[in-house]
Amino acid sequence: MDKPLLYIIKVGGHLIDDPTGLDNFLELFATLPKSTNSGIPVYKLLVHGGGKMATQVGQQLGVPAQLIDGRRITDTETLKVVTMVYGGLLNKQLVAQLQQLGCNALGLTGADGNSLLAHKRTNAEIDYGWVGDIDQVNTALFNLLITAGLAPVVAPLTHDGRGHLLNTNADTMAQELAVALSGSFTTSLLFTFEKEGVLTDLAQPDSVLSSIDAKAYQHLKSTGSIFAGMIPKLDNAFKALEKGVSRVLIGKAEKLHDLIQGKAGTTLVK
Amino acid sequence: MDKPLLYIIKVGGHLIDDPTGLDNFLELFATLPKSTNSGIPVYKLLVHGGGKMATQVGQQLGVPAQLIDGRRITDTETLKVVTMVYGGLLNKQLVAQLQQLGCNALGLTGADGNSLLAHKRTNAEIDYGWVGDIDQVNTALFNLLITAGLAPVVAPLTHDGRGHLLNTNADTMAQELAVALSGSFTTSLLFTFEKEGVLTDLAQPDSVLSSIDAKAYQHLKSTGSIFAGMIPKLDNAFKALEKGVSRVLIGKAEKLHDLIQGKAGTTLVK
Repeated sequence: MDKPLLYIIKVGGHLIDDPTGLDNFLELFATLPKSTNSGIPVYKLLVHGGGKMATQVGQQLGVPAQLIDGRRITDTETLKVVTMVYGGLLNKQLVAQLQQLGCNALGLTGADGNSLLAHKRTNAEIDYGWVGDIDQVNTALFNLLITAGLAPVVAPLTHDGRGHLLNTNADTMAQELAVALSGSFTTSLLFTFEKEGVLTDLAQPDSVLSSIDAKAYQHLKSTGSIFAGMIPKLDNAFKALEKGVSRVLIGKAEKLHDLIQGKAGTTLVK
Repeated sequence: MDKPLLYIIKVGGHLIDDPTGLDNFLELFATLPKSTNSGIPVYKLLVHGGGKMATQVGQQLGVPAQLIDGRRITDTETLKVVTMVYGGLLNKQLVAQLQQLGCNALGLTGADGNSLLAHKRTNAEIDYGWVGDIDQVNTALFNLLITAGLAPVVAPLTHDGRGHLLNTNADTMAQELAVALSGSFTTSLLFTFEKEGVLTDLAQPDSVLSSIDAKAYQHLKSTGSIFAGMIPKLDNAFKALEKGVSRVLIGKAEKLHDLIQGKAGTTLVK
């Protein structure tokens, strides 16, 4: 029998800070079809980024953001701020909104049910503080929740099993979840944001690549035709395809249904 | 066959603000026996109050606490603060600590999995703001999580199904959970805090009543021998016994094991 489908959808970028865009996205998320035409169940899981709210709340609390090369340094006070904002305010508002839309969302950090176990990143050059790299996805927990009809809404926080929460990159989290859950589900990994997809020319929104395979990607990368900011995301996405993820889709959050149907955005194939 | 046992444990009072006391309590919570001597499974669920942290964070964010008759008025900005502190910081720290102690905790607000549906309180005289009274406990969800070996850790927040979170009294929440889950479990409802139990003389910590039934309670209440602050808690507790809860225990959080064995605190009986 065919495995059920699972969409692992990362929403991030500026969308988290754009109430109208976010509302539209949540409505599309809530109304994704619950089964395929041939009757195979379709499940979904949301991973959200942090947005600017943590920086704002931190400033108000006297905890200014510390960034090195665009990466947030998570000291003890910053960890409290992101736990409040990502795990509390943002996660619970998303869950409450999805509930209103008839989607049975359930918010999680990696500590909840030991869903995402990580270790504190060690780096000889830069101390990123309470930042985690994922070691293990609790697939039994996700299977239990998902097949019960719940839509997990995962905040970008993991834990180390030693009583510490860890700030964790939401893109990586979505990718690790997609790979780990490929054993039980046919997984599609979606990176949704405010852009149309992978563009060959940033100034031209219609320069979106509808499809790209690993070979074409390497060529475009070598010729400098891929926006530098997209490269880590794409490198990871191609790795996810190698590790069992069926499809990776990249595109505009507000075109979620078209994206899933291949009518918008960029589809990555092996 | 006997139903599995479920301990619904409210921890509140000053304990939330006392790291050492809280650590001790969590260790006791994590190490509760997993089955009875006769092999019946023993499950547990934690409900936590808010403590003073929301007031502190609120002040720092320019959202001073507004209290009328000791009750917090939850305006829109205050709701954001309690969502951050109760649903984020406090709930996730408790979960991470319990995970460290080997207890598979999973944090929930009432919005998560639609676990606790409520309505906004309407009061002709005082507008309490975003405060909820519980209408429905999602027993199927709690059954699913609890029998899978997870210990739900419930923050004092519900939702209205219309996209709003609601600030909700943790005592009431524990009681509603105990009543609703009595269909599937033999439930014990525990109110744990910094006091020894129900005292007949507040100045005498050894004046704790080891057991009290409804008739004796009415008598003590009529003679003014019960501390006024305990009366709403006790009134509700006796109602819970009428509605299917097997035992209500009131006592010191740091004597949790003794409390459960009837060696400390106050046991309420019908």
